[in-house]
Amino acid sequence: MRTIDPAKMEAKRRHILDAAIDCFSRNGFHGTSTAAICAAAGMSPGNLFHYFPTKASIIEAIAQEDQLATAEIFARWSETDDALTAIEEIVLEFMRLASEPVYARISIEIGAEATRNPDVNALFLANEEKVKGRMVSLIKRGITQGTIDTTLESDLVATWLIALAEGAVGRVVFDRGFDSYVHEPMLRRIVRKTLQP
Amino acid sequence: MRTIDPAKMEAKRRHILDAAIDCFSRNGFHGTSTAAICAAAGMSPGNLFHYFPTKASIIEAIAQEDQLATAEIFARWSETDDALTAIEEIVLEFMRLASEPVYARISIEIGAEATRNPDVNALFLANEEKVKGRMVSLIKRGITQGTIDTTLESDLVATWLIALAEGAVGRVVFDRGFDSYVHEPMLRRIVRKTLQP
Repeated sequence: MRTIDPAKMEAKRRHILDAAIDCFSRNGFHGTSTAAICAAAGMSPGNLFHYFPTKASIIEAIAQEDQLATAEIFARWSETDDALTAIEEIVLEFMRLASEPVYARISIEIGAEATRNPDVNALFLANEEKVKGRMVSLIKRGITQGTIDTTLESDLVATWLIALAEGAVGRVVFDRGFDSYVHEPMLRRIVRKTLQP
Repeated sequence: MRTIDPAKMEAKRRHILDAAIDCFSRNGFHGTSTAAICAAAGMSPGNLFHYFPTKASIIEAIAQEDQLATAEIFARWSETDDALTAIEEIVLEFMRLASEPVYARISIEIGAEATRNPDVNALFLANEEKVKGRMVSLIKRGITQGTIDTTLESDLVATWLIALAEGAVGRVVFDRGFDSYVHEPMLRRIVRKTLQP
């Protein structure tokens, strides 16, 4: 009997996802056929099907990855006592992530697909709600700690902190020579000035 | 001899553009054929060709419109003495524009197309540079007036003011029930706190 090596399975899955993300970021979801993903991953349709039965299941996996990536960023700063510092660092990490060219391009593709495909929309809307919920908790903690303005509505601020970090996506596409590193001090200033009492 | 009525020509052009924008926002640039635009505009391919010889020429017209819309917003506040107030109002107007569902959807389509099509990229990159240039001028004026922090690098701040306003695009798609009106006071706060000395 053949045994299945979970590590090998996972490596293969990862390999397919990377190939698919590369195809999507270059040609869009609609412009990418499963045949193109097979070619990029160097495997047969039957083999691909074993890991991802549909193109939609690949998009689902990308949404899961995105959720994991953002959850990890929050987890990394969850032990920090000062909520304001945690928020500042998290927004910066999100901005760096959004500035990665492949991430930026796939984000735009996801946005375009989400406006037409309710399933894709639901997936990423759920991700965004989780991010917002975690941000709101941190803001409330900062208010309790006295480092964040008590008059702020945490839900409204959270929305704009996310919008700010995601703003890097548009910069990558429409701002020639955008370098996230150069922009870090400015983003820190915006976050601090906005939140502080 | 038939005379051409410029007002009629312009109305027809406007009608085609609206039909095309509607098609693009629903099905994307790639998913929209010129036949679909003809059907939406209720005209023959020959007639459409008379106004817009290619799909690319329609996208060019959309870029021109976008440039006009942003230039008008700046023009509207150019007479305001206080540069800080002008900037605040301009960012708010941009955010309201970006919050319009059709505008938001077409912006995402443009972003997706711009990552693949260098001509489209160049058009909207030029628009963004104009917006940024005008914003930088206002920031410098505010610094001279003493209402904006003299230590700020106008170019870097301008980038994030634009990113903030554009942030509404993502909210429309991924934030259920996003209402730009509710968010205005928060955006005003972010702009003021960021810019003030």
